[in-house]
Amino acid sequence: MRVTVRDVAQVVGGTIIGDADQLLTGISSLAEASSGDISFLANPKYEPYLAETRATAVLVASAHKAPNIIQVVVPNPDFAFAKVVATFGPKAVPPPPGIHPSAVIGDNVTLGANLAIGPYVVIADGATIGDNTVLYPHVYIGHDTAIGSDCTIYPQVSIRERCRIGSRVILHSGVVIGSDGFGYASVEGVHHKIPQVGIVVIEDDVEIGANSCLDRARFGRTRIGKGTKIDNLVQIAHNVETGHHCIIVAQVGVAGSTKLGNYVTLAGQAGISGHLSIGDYAMVTGKAGVSKSIPPRMVVRGSPAQEIKSCQAQEVAVRRLPATQATVKELLGRVAELERRLGELTGQGGAGAAPEKAP
Amino acid sequence: MRVTVRDVAQVVGGTIIGDADQLLTGISSLAEASSGDISFLANPKYEPYLAETRATAVLVASAHKAPNIIQVVVPNPDFAFAKVVATFGPKAVPPPPGIHPSAVIGDNVTLGANLAIGPYVVIADGATIGDNTVLYPHVYIGHDTAIGSDCTIYPQVSIRERCRIGSRVILHSGVVIGSDGFGYASVEGVHHKIPQVGIVVIEDDVEIGANSCLDRARFGRTRIGKGTKIDNLVQIAHNVETGHHCIIVAQVGVAGSTKLGNYVTLAGQAGISGHLSIGDYAMVTGKAGVSKSIPPRMVVRGSPAQEIKSCQAQEVAVRRLPATQATVKELLGRVAELERRLGELTGQGGAGAAPEKAP
Amino acid sequence: MRVTVRDVAQVVGGTIIGDADQLLTGISSLAEASSGDISFLANPKYEPYLAETRATAVLVASAHKAPNIIQVVVPNPDFAFAKVVATFGPKAVPPPPGIHPSAVIGDNVTLGANLAIGPYVVIADGATIGDNTVLYPHVYIGHDTAIGSDCTIYPQVSIRERCRIGSRVILHSGVVIGSDGFGYASVEGVHHKIPQVGIVVIEDDVEIGANSCLDRARFGRTRIGKGTKIDNLVQIAHNVETGHHCIIVAQVGVAGSTKLGNYVTLAGQAGISGHLSIGDYAMVTGKAGVSKSIPPRMVVRGSPAQEIKSCQAQEVAVRRLPATQATVKELLGRVAELERRLGELTGQGGAGAAPEKAP
Repeated sequence: MRVTVRDVAQVVGGTIIGDADQLLTGISSLAEASSGDISFLANPKYEPYLAETRATAVLVASAHKAPNIIQVVVPNPDFAFAKVVATFGPKAVPPPPGIHPSAVIGDNVTLGANLAIGPYVVIADGATIGDNTVLYPHVYIGHDTAIGSDCTIYPQVSIRERCRIGSRVILHSGVVIGSDGFGYASVEGVHHKIPQVGIVVIEDDVEIGANSCLDRARFGRTRIGKGTKIDNLVQIAHNVETGHHCIIVAQVGVAGSTKLGNYVTLAGQAGISGHLSIGDYAMVTGKAGVSKSIPPRMVVRGSPAQEIKSCQAQEVAVRRLPATQATVKELLGRVAELERRLGELTGQGGAGAAPEKAP
Repeated sequence: MRVTVRDVAQVVGGTIIGDADQLLTGISSLAEASSGDISFLANPKYEPYLAETRATAVLVASAHKAPNIIQVVVPNPDFAFAKVVATFGPKAVPPPPGIHPSAVIGDNVTLGANLAIGPYVVIADGATIGDNTVLYPHVYIGHDTAIGSDCTIYPQVSIRERCRIGSRVILHSGVVIGSDGFGYASVEGVHHKIPQVGIVVIEDDVEIGANSCLDRARFGRTRIGKGTKIDNLVQIAHNVETGHHCIIVAQVGVAGSTKLGNYVTLAGQAGISGHLSIGDYAMVTGKAGVSKSIPPRMVVRGSPAQEIKSCQAQEVAVRRLPATQATVKELLGRVAELERRLGELTGQGGAGAAPEKAP
Repeated sequence: MRVTVRDVAQVVGGTIIGDADQLLTGISSLAEASSGDISFLANPKYEPYLAETRATAVLVASAHKAPNIIQVVVPNPDFAFAKVVATFGPKAVPPPPGIHPSAVIGDNVTLGANLAIGPYVVIADGATIGDNTVLYPHVYIGHDTAIGSDCTIYPQVSIRERCRIGSRVILHSGVVIGSDGFGYASVEGVHHKIPQVGIVVIEDDVEIGANSCLDRARFGRTRIGKGTKIDNLVQIAHNVETGHHCIIVAQVGVAGSTKLGNYVTLAGQAGISGHLSIGDYAMVTGKAGVSKSIPPRMVVRGSPAQEIKSCQAQEVAVRRLPATQATVKELLGRVAELERRLGELTGQGGAGAAPEKAP
């Protein structure tokens, strides 16, 4: 990479503070940067690095006092930096276009134009693969499954029969789509398998992280809405549906038939029980355990999950609880003492009786 | 699908309320049904859908007031519906019988009758595969491993050396069986690997969900008992043993050497520490963290897990805790005031002394 | 296996109590041992088994009263037993040396000596594989990725482009290395993918469990330090770095950019938020949720995680909380009664006024 600060500013539409002709030779974080690198400051937590970084230029949201570094001011440094990386950074190397001779392609498979199908890919009968889609080695595509155009499917992904994958979908290595939902009818002590004959529908622009699992519906469909992003090792059970543009972080589990609205965020390791409804823009914090439906825009925390302010108030209260219990013990003593003294008093010169109450 | 309500009632042994000759053309949930569909009502939570559904017929446990819908009354609508789906619904399409020429089959491998072995399956030396078993593409079977009859092993399953898999076992995509247990002896700051030379035994009628991992024993065996069902992304550590007919839901982890009895239920994301004993019919609720052995039939909740009633009482108590602490603060004030007043009183006209106590 | 107790004692450097010439024919745990077996006692929890075991000899840390069993006293029975198993126990059977003709090996790939590359392995252009490394079937190695010597990479591992794997590294089945980090810039309601152009570096002597996922850095590197051991189904997000000799147990998740020191232990199902620093020798207990940085050697517990003693004190306090709340209710009654009585008293014969206060 050999570009000027001006080149970068043009790509991101930014304003330069400093030498526009300075040459940039690399891309890095503030902490790791060497001389010649372009970096960025988005998270305020990293602001102290601005004084120490060896970066030559930095994307910022507003001008900082940093005389030794060229600044490029942009509205969203995170997004701008992504553009810089995409434009000037190293590129992923897709498999060469064309169909590797070792790929096993079934009968009545419809293949789009400009595909890259790697070694040992297996595509079952009746499947459809759209234009420009990349299938890395060892991918399995089941019977009658349809995949849209411009998808990237990394090695060892398994998509079973009759599923529907949209366009511009990215599936990372080891993703499993269309495995049977977990359903049994227990009769006389034996768990009889309930057939899982539905499908999985993945809409356009969805990305799914490595080794995540999306079970097929019992009947009907498990559905991931357009633009939703799912991280690694996530479990999506049968008949779950998500709206558009949800964010589901690593190791989350969503149990059967739960419906997510649009723009729902589920943070890492959260678990959502089955048959619930999670409203638009709701947010579930990390490790929360959700056992009741959540209205739109509510933020919940804890397990069992509650509205975040209540939960945090309780967390604070629990941290003070040992002290509270010591106070209660002290109060017990003081009240007993008061009762004793008042008993003495009324026994000696009081109006009523009640001397029995003291012990 | 074109069958009459009578056909369905015969398959499930049900009693018809309504037109037995009505034609049915599909299978669906109450919420998603169209005209012509057969549906079912098992979870009472979905009873309100009965008034709104477009389904033509519904399997129910008892007659409901629903004049516009044909009812078929059966003892267990869930199980009956599974029969309907299995009888009339779409079927999974297994790979064609026979051994794909690309399968790599080692020396001294014993193959049963009527197998379906897909492309790029690798079977190491000395393995045994029983009759009617289906191995999907990219399955790996290790040295001397034996698999029973009528099993279904989905793509990209890895079973390492010397394991024993029963009959009618279903392993979903990405399952790993026989990986090394996680064991090290730390000597002078270095973690030395402890050889894991045992095996995994999976008994008959077990089903294991996508991307779940079952480690081989340090020595001896890791064992999954007959009829046990395991969901996706579950971790079973070395030397764990389960009894018969357990239910282990998604993302559960069971640490090394823990023994489960029969009919144990571990709900989603639960974690069980190592070297414990979980009694028959015990139930661990979702996200619980179990650090002590559990007697038979006990239901536990929370982390660290406790008997469910105690845990729920504490959860209720914690929700009231901020109010309790406000009350304690108020009591402190009131008691101090009482002490002050009583001090004044006894200082003025009381029996004893103690006027110092008021401040 | 046919060895004498003396043979075993020589291998582990132990002192024999009993018949050094006794023949041993197997290796087992105390609970499962048969006559002729050598076993070991490391965890004091299993001491009662010493009286009941059928083992013929046992490795112990100090002499026990166990007249019917031959004892071999060693400083670390766990480690010594690992040596016995490694020396006399069954061996894993690696694939035969050499390169299977079905392996697809790209251009400019550098292959070391004495490799074992199994069927259907795919190695992309520019990759390097060191001496004596074993690649099991269906492994995928991406462009320009370098793997050291003496590594074992089990079936269906996926390592994407430009990653660096050290020597003596063990990767279990289904491990994914180098998948894209989970990063988006949300602009006008759409999550735009931030390119993840960094790499993953795995240093020497690391072991990673089945189906674990290690994302590539946004830029720079995700790094696993020398000698660190990672269990199954673990999530390591982009730009995470660990020091040397850490232990990361199953189903742990570490969010983006968090740095672990040396000798950190993360127990099962723990979750660590992003951008934190976890000090040397710190320990996070099972299921803990860490949202703040942890100083060296601190042990934390709970979610949100706290120093373990505080957390345990609060757990005890919560278990007593229902009783505490009953006491507070009782105190409210007693204080009200005191106030009433004192009001009566002072209203009748007291110094001041305040009769209004009683109700």
